[in-house]
Amino acid sequence: MQSADKPLLERETPIRVALDAMGGDYAPHETVKGAVAALGRPGMELLLVGDAAPVQAELDKYDLEGKSVKVVPSEGRIGDDEHPLHAFRQKPDASVIVGTKLVKAGQADVMVSLGSTGASMATAALVLGMMEGLERPCIGGPFLGLAPRTVLMDLGSNVDCRPSQLLNFAALGSVFAHRFLGTENPRVALLSVGSEKSKGNRQVQDSYELFEQSHLNFVGNVEGMDFFSDKADVIVCDGFVGNILIKFTEGMGSALGGYLSKQLAPYMSEEQMKDVFNRLWQTTNLPRTMGGPLFGVNGAVIVGHGSSRADGVAGAINTAVRYVEMGLLESMRDELAEISRNGLAGESQ
Amino acid sequence: MQSADKPLLERETPIRVALDAMGGDYAPHETVKGAVAALGRPGMELLLVGDAAPVQAELDKYDLEGKSVKVVPSEGRIGDDEHPLHAFRQKPDASVIVGTKLVKAGQADVMVSLGSTGASMATAALVLGMMEGLERPCIGGPFLGLAPRTVLMDLGSNVDCRPSQLLNFAALGSVFAHRFLGTENPRVALLSVGSEKSKGNRQVQDSYELFEQSHLNFVGNVEGMDFFSDKADVIVCDGFVGNILIKFTEGMGSALGGYLSKQLAPYMSEEQMKDVFNRLWQTTNLPRTMGGPLFGVNGAVIVGHGSSRADGVAGAINTAVRYVEMGLLESMRDELAEISRNGLAGESQ
Repeated sequence: MQSADKPLLERETPIRVALDAMGGDYAPHETVKGAVAALGRPGMELLLVGDAAPVQAELDKYDLEGKSVKVVPSEGRIGDDEHPLHAFRQKPDASVIVGTKLVKAGQADVMVSLGSTGASMATAALVLGMMEGLERPCIGGPFLGLAPRTVLMDLGSNVDCRPSQLLNFAALGSVFAHRFLGTENPRVALLSVGSEKSKGNRQVQDSYELFEQSHLNFVGNVEGMDFFSDKADVIVCDGFVGNILIKFTEGMGSALGGYLSKQLAPYMSEEQMKDVFNRLWQTTNLPRTMGGPLFGVNGAVIVGHGSSRADGVAGAINTAVRYVEMGLLESMRDELAEISRNGLAGESQ
Repeated sequence: MQSADKPLLERETPIRVALDAMGGDYAPHETVKGAVAALGRPGMELLLVGDAAPVQAELDKYDLEGKSVKVVPSEGRIGDDEHPLHAFRQKPDASVIVGTKLVKAGQADVMVSLGSTGASMATAALVLGMMEGLERPCIGGPFLGLAPRTVLMDLGSNVDCRPSQLLNFAALGSVFAHRFLGTENPRVALLSVGSEKSKGNRQVQDSYELFEQSHLNFVGNVEGMDFFSDKADVIVCDGFVGNILIKFTEGMGSALGGYLSKQLAPYMSEEQMKDVFNRLWQTTNLPRTMGGPLFGVNGAVIVGHGSSRADGVAGAINTAVRYVEMGLLESMRDELAEISRNGLAGESQ
């Protein structure tokens, strides 16, 4: 697996991506289809983790001449309706667990799953362990096509957060914005109900000073409309608020589609409208098209939306490859260590 | 002022509306213009509270033959940038204070202000007093044109809330949905990150049981997408979340306008697009077009958005008249008393 016949510019060995082929609403049909599509990218090896027979059957549909892909057998899957921790204990050979263990064992560089996010998080935390200062993985990234370079952290994994947790999210988001999105010196903000330091709930007010004392490029509070005003590159909130926002946006995108189809019917054909709406849907469902990293775990894990079709699967795999290429994991570990060193002492740069 | 020459169906006396003519970004020009437009409605008397000379000068531009309107002099105004409580003490004759005192004295049935919401809230709480169980006024109502019958409470006045406060918001919202929007037995829900009882932050989990035990028609938790799925008529959250959502929606409406104008340019003229966007703007800025009540104060106060033009002012005045006609204040007081009686004892109906 370490053959160097397809070198990348910055790597001598291919990137080994483990895909949970059983995860997602349309697995393994769409996961395998998406995996094969992603194999067009050079310098990548794919490990399809799943029930061997059905995964191989899907794989046999394609011409894989010259492509580096193999099946790693696992047994069963963990569903959205299962308790992640119970399932982790009861199904030790489930696809998400076997795949994550490949990362832990150094046999894969990154793991991609479209299955239960809860199961991915619990498995990653238990198998790979957490970075310093974090208790649970967090999820984040751009979530609005209308603001594709604005990172929101956390999107739903940590519903009650202490100020120090929010600061860790900010540090992780800042590295992601810098390295993955190419934003120089990312502006970090707390999501609140007014821009003044005195505005916000207790959590935000308690966090403000901690953020000011950090070495991050903290620009203060922003408000709900500032996702669209280019005031900040990384917007930090707890997972309760973040999850409500992301689901609200998804719902609004669908509802607007219905609303606009009535408004626009006099002006355009159904085909033309479909085209406009498809693009609109993407602007309100960004995480579904590219997946996002599980931040804070000691290993690279990318989660995608369960309703992803083949193109969403391929998008998540591409995100995984870029994540590894850019060495994001190491940068994030360094950044958290920096935050931890500065601590509450306020030794800003 | 108690002349009964323009009887409503259900009232023998006209409804007396005090308007803070100095409140809002375009006062007094647009406030007076909107007031005159609203005077087309029968059975209403208008009291324009403001600096006498400029308000009268605006009023003199119109033919008021047969209209019942008069100027109540006040001195100065409280701006958005002033601390509401300090301003309340330093400017006792400011328009919002004089107007609210007309309600307290029984000389007006309802007060309407487009000025600083903070000043309206502080003044209402201090002059009119709070209903039992509430410490601060709350604001709420439908906020999405796409879901015009779904009430969100609180929209921003109470950023940290105990479960009992959320229950009071629910009771007020339930009365509003029933009486003002005509919804039978309104379905009440907590805004959370999952529908199961176990899902949510500590605040929501602590509130769930209290809601279950109340006599409200509690249907459980809803998620961000459920503003568009008709699962609940009254959705309850603290003002931190509510304020972020309403501002996010406003910002998204504007951003979508820009995005869609590029997408739609090939299909329609600028005039046609303007028309579609104006309607789209209204669907994402509902509170700006009709104002909403300050809930929980012992008197009827309607607040509108500071950027309202004449039609927004007239919309808020119409909301004020309907609010009084329907006896909402009395119903809300009864509902809070009922909640308070049931308390934590769980005597559900």
